[in-house]
Amino acid sequence: MRKFAISRPNQDIRIKLEDKIDNLTKPKGSLGKLETLAVKIGLVQQTLTPELRNPHNVLFAADHGIIEEGVTVSPKEVTWQQLSHFSHGGAGINFLCDQHGFKLILVDAGVDYDIPEGRGIIDMKVRKSTRNFLHEPAMTSDEFDLCIERGAQVVDSIHDNGCNVVSFGEMGSGNTSPSSMWMHILTGIPLTDCIGAGAGLDNSGINHKLNVLTKAYENYSGDGSVKNLLEWFGGYELAMAVGGMLRAAELGMLIIVDGFIMTSCVAAAAHFYPAVLDYAVFGHQGDESGHKLMLQALGADPILHLGLRLGEGSGAVCAYPILQSAVNMINRMDSFADVAVTKYF
Amino acid sequence: MRKFAISRPNQDIRIKLEDKIDNLTKPKGSLGKLETLAVKIGLVQQTLTPELRNPHNVLFAADHGIIEEGVTVSPKEVTWQQLSHFSHGGAGINFLCDQHGFKLILVDAGVDYDIPEGRGIIDMKVRKSTRNFLHEPAMTSDEFDLCIERGAQVVDSIHDNGCNVVSFGEMGSGNTSPSSMWMHILTGIPLTDCIGAGAGLDNSGINHKLNVLTKAYENYSGDGSVKNLLEWFGGYELAMAVGGMLRAAELGMLIIVDGFIMTSCVAAAAHFYPAVLDYAVFGHQGDESGHKLMLQALGADPILHLGLRLGEGSGAVCAYPILQSAVNMINRMDSFADVAVTKYF
Repeated sequence: MRKFAISRPNQDIRIKLEDKIDNLTKPKGSLGKLETLAVKIGLVQQTLTPELRNPHNVLFAADHGIIEEGVTVSPKEVTWQQLSHFSHGGAGINFLCDQHGFKLILVDAGVDYDIPEGRGIIDMKVRKSTRNFLHEPAMTSDEFDLCIERGAQVVDSIHDNGCNVVSFGEMGSGNTSPSSMWMHILTGIPLTDCIGAGAGLDNSGINHKLNVLTKAYENYSGDGSVKNLLEWFGGYELAMAVGGMLRAAELGMLIIVDGFIMTSCVAAAAHFYPAVLDYAVFGHQGDESGHKLMLQALGADPILHLGLRLGEGSGAVCAYPILQSAVNMINRMDSFADVAVTKYF
Repeated sequence: MRKFAISRPNQDIRIKLEDKIDNLTKPKGSLGKLETLAVKIGLVQQTLTPELRNPHNVLFAADHGIIEEGVTVSPKEVTWQQLSHFSHGGAGINFLCDQHGFKLILVDAGVDYDIPEGRGIIDMKVRKSTRNFLHEPAMTSDEFDLCIERGAQVVDSIHDNGCNVVSFGEMGSGNTSPSSMWMHILTGIPLTDCIGAGAGLDNSGINHKLNVLTKAYENYSGDGSVKNLLEWFGGYELAMAVGGMLRAAELGMLIIVDGFIMTSCVAAAAHFYPAVLDYAVFGHQGDESGHKLMLQALGADPILHLGLRLGEGSGAVCAYPILQSAVNMINRMDSFADVAVTKYF
């Protein structure tokens, strides 16, 4: 797997950031999470006047062999249909990207369909769908490494466009199954607490999903390394998002993490390079069972709690105006020294 | 007190709103709070294609006689200084209004200062500060009624400007004290659970505040009606916000409720006209003790949880992009019937 040079942002500027924020015309601490986000963004950018420029939402799509086992209510054809739909506009992620000035980048990581050219969908297809990990590894080690490389390439291109803040999203029928496996592998939380309803399973559907994933884990016969486990139970869109996150951190970009699936990806990225978390903010905590537990395991403090479970990057993009508010606060508010207001705390 | 004609929005359109949302290209319910907000806004506006137009944040400022008892760390001069600051720009509420396209309306409801003309601050001063309610009623019944009338007038003027969505904010050193009294009066929750740190009291300061407010309540000698209690322990900016909210509901406008103080105002408005709550969304749940309890008492489900405690309308304005997302969702997303996507739930 490609190497990344990811180090913790230099912490020397932290005290200056905190001091600047404490002297803005408000009771100390009274802008709550806007203040902690401004410190985080200032650390990532190593400046007292951070800026968010040219945001992009990179959406990786792929299909999953495990869908053969009936682990989702969402048929496989929906992956391609929705990816096509995103390229036309009119889907959930489209109106959110339009509202917040995000450019939407669509990437075919492994969709089981011959995607026509001319749709603006970037062809990075590794294979038409992963294999069924109930019976065999979802992907080879070479395929995983290729995903990391290609995810990084996409981030290179948006960084070249002047982007310094990126969210990642996904589309893939059945992809809460590999995400739950990754969560289990990376956090040690029992599989039963890593599994939820996905696009809309009922209780018996969730039990079936748990049985399939438990059996798949029992059938595992790899080398036991975390990387091998992530490959075995992975998804192409997930692995590509990991590569994208790692490259974004290497480039000093701010990463907005979406919901359950993207949280499992940043957890995987942090397994390889823990400092990636210094570049990540968590946009949204959803209702998918286990998301809260995984966020806690990462020490994450999500920005929004809106009960979203759409994926596509929707929770991350929704959180963007809060990040922009944090940046506006530190850049545009007067300090007590600027104006004739008695410091009132 | 002026009468308002506030009735519940006709509920007949609810099923059509829910049906439209359920057929958008996403798993049913997967946009969580955006879906419930879109239904609420559609009900207020009685349309399947709601719009948010020309948002305003109306900020009422006033001083409080109870401040003589040392119930806040914020000196009285800060009320005028910050109101002046808002009129120049550079305060917390300014960058938020700029970011989200809100017009900021500043109203002197009862500031203890001769405010110079030409600052764009609307003069609706009832009196220079309320009286000290430890010893006497903060305001007369006529003053309360005048506040209701003037708050309504301000909303008339913004409605005439084409505004259909309004948030209310406040500035007033010491104004968590009357708000805590109102919460206690309106919800019956024990006073000790209605009191918090305000702009930054420590524990002994909070205890002192509790003692002062408890004594004030013991000293009460009015007629025992809720209206009399609200007057006795009120604030001019609070009562004006109540009038503004009632008129906004009467005009069919959407009201975005800010934090603790404005929640006590909407609770007061709902005492007089319970249907006002059908026109209100709750922007933010802050850390001020009791805010969560008061929201629960109102059956409110706040949009954001950002740990803000600034006031000024900041929590309401921060929530605006989420409301805009709800409206964009219902207007701009394709339905399954529009596009070739298999319904996947």
